[in-house]
Amino acid sequence: MELSQIYAPVNNDLLKVEAALKAVSQVDFPWLSQLLNHSLEAGGKRIRPALTLLSGQFYNYKLEFLLNMALSIELMHTATLIHDDAIDKSDMRRGRATVYKIWGTEPAILLGDYLFAQAGVAVSGTQSIRCIRAFSETLMTISRGELNQAQNAFNLHQTREQYFQRIYSKTASLFCLATESGGILSDAPESSIQLLKSYGHDVGIAFQIVDDILDFTGTEQELGKPSGSDLIQGTLTLPAIMLNERYPADNPVKRIFEGQRNPEYIRMAIDQIRNSSIVDDCYKIARGYCEKACQTLQTLPAKPCQQSLRELADFIVKRRK
Amino acid sequence: MELSQIYAPVNNDLLKVEAALKAVSQVDFPWLSQLLNHSLEAGGKRIRPALTLLSGQFYNYKLEFLLNMALSIELMHTATLIHDDAIDKSDMRRGRATVYKIWGTEPAILLGDYLFAQAGVAVSGTQSIRCIRAFSETLMTISRGELNQAQNAFNLHQTREQYFQRIYSKTASLFCLATESGGILSDAPESSIQLLKSYGHDVGIAFQIVDDILDFTGTEQELGKPSGSDLIQGTLTLPAIMLNERYPADNPVKRIFEGQRNPEYIRMAIDQIRNSSIVDDCYKIARGYCEKACQTLQTLPAKPCQQSLRELADFIVKRRK
Repeated sequence: MELSQIYAPVNNDLLKVEAALKAVSQVDFPWLSQLLNHSLEAGGKRIRPALTLLSGQFYNYKLEFLLNMALSIELMHTATLIHDDAIDKSDMRRGRATVYKIWGTEPAILLGDYLFAQAGVAVSGTQSIRCIRAFSETLMTISRGELNQAQNAFNLHQTREQYFQRIYSKTASLFCLATESGGILSDAPESSIQLLKSYGHDVGIAFQIVDDILDFTGTEQELGKPSGSDLIQGTLTLPAIMLNERYPADNPVKRIFEGQRNPEYIRMAIDQIRNSSIVDDCYKIARGYCEKACQTLQTLPAKPCQQSLRELADFIVKRRK
Repeated sequence: MELSQIYAPVNNDLLKVEAALKAVSQVDFPWLSQLLNHSLEAGGKRIRPALTLLSGQFYNYKLEFLLNMALSIELMHTATLIHDDAIDKSDMRRGRATVYKIWGTEPAILLGDYLFAQAGVAVSGTQSIRCIRAFSETLMTISRGELNQAQNAFNLHQTREQYFQRIYSKTASLFCLATESGGILSDAPESSIQLLKSYGHDVGIAFQIVDDILDFTGTEQELGKPSGSDLIQGTLTLPAIMLNERYPADNPVKRIFEGQRNPEYIRMAIDQIRNSSIVDDCYKIARGYCEKACQTLQTLPAKPCQQSLRELADFIVKRRK
């Protein structure tokens, strides 16, 4: 199923988010304009803004506030990616050169800061102190998660629990914000806001697990970056944890994390994970989260947006990039 | 005059800001706690939070909201310094090693992001959409100014007008926010809010001019970093512009900016600026801004905070560090 079909109830409004993102690049400072254009150009899946708009359709759909929220979330997401690429020294993202690669660390830091600020302006347009506060708390959670990831680079002794905590921080927390704020800004009852947040949490966790699987199973063309990137960065993801659990005495992940940064071991780890049941086992866990997410939706009003959110959960597990 | 005397009407409340800054470091993640402690430890002059609190005393002094605003401004300021140090690869600040120097670029980026977010949480505590929006707009202005500075590194052909635009962006805009928000959060009439903002602008410009003078006239011990840092970074400040205006054919600033990055020319530029009327001329301009700032205060209610703001303007020009 195509995303545009899934997004059907909000497709028109997503075009408005796209237009607002384009407007962000229209500044009278040519270099900044160029940097913004490069970073905000269409190409992403826009899952987070879609989640906010769809979550806002169960009750009183207040378009202006929801558009501001959706915009702010996509801007915050973009800003974190720009900083991540500078931190990881990543050359490619979505098949294109990163801001870091083209312009260097310094502009990447400042452009990220500018986008955080622009996101802050957008979220202030929701007129909701609760959403504004949640927005900043989410950025705290994300930054904290990234610091934790940096501290644990090449640390083989991380548990699954630590892994889930980390992917909550770096990914699911923003999905939570997207769906929770959709509820808040449409005057949903508190119980429904919590259900939407729970849905966001579960699809967010599933989304990151799938991302971590694709880093091993995807081709460079599908991923828009080299496969095995996580191992190169020293990030221990679920498939790598499973490989290490199965062959604790010796395995290529262990060798890489213990200092043998040989490209051959990256290749070996990818092959061993692909040719084992690890991929299936990881997908099983991701599907479990998506099923739970869909169950959570059942007590919400039966509107087209409910069906969309169900299909989106399904898409998240089936996607190839 | 000591700062504690100038701050007399708000000294007790500044202690509360200090306590709130300390509380920010109390997180259950030891490394993050260490990074926060290092960055937020007492030592700064706390001019920006003092400006917010003093500006809030002309009308209805709502302590809780003003404390949140003062805290958010100091946190945003700290975050920008941490990112600046990573960008400039600065080893020292206020006589101590920078986060960048001790922990590297990556933690500096993430710690700055975390502090921006923490500042966002604090500003949401003002319950004022106007202050929240102004807060984010100010961070946009600062980031934009820093990008402009990066783009113009080692560009000798910058006018005084560009210089004033730049120091507005990087410094005075935050002073504006500090005083304007003090007015907003104390229910000041709109005309008084604008007067306070104008005062903030003028002392902010003066503050940065003096900073730029001290970079040439201060000792390493006073500055807490090597003198001549701006020239080393390729930042063209008012004293350097004046030197270049006076000796357009040949001067050490020109040589440095044209590629002769010889430490001897840094030394020569410092000596030539110190031994000329340039220092006095720059101070004259800074004093002009402070006098204008003090005149602006005259139509505000005659309360102790007015006297404090006048003394603070005076302190800003007379300080040695």
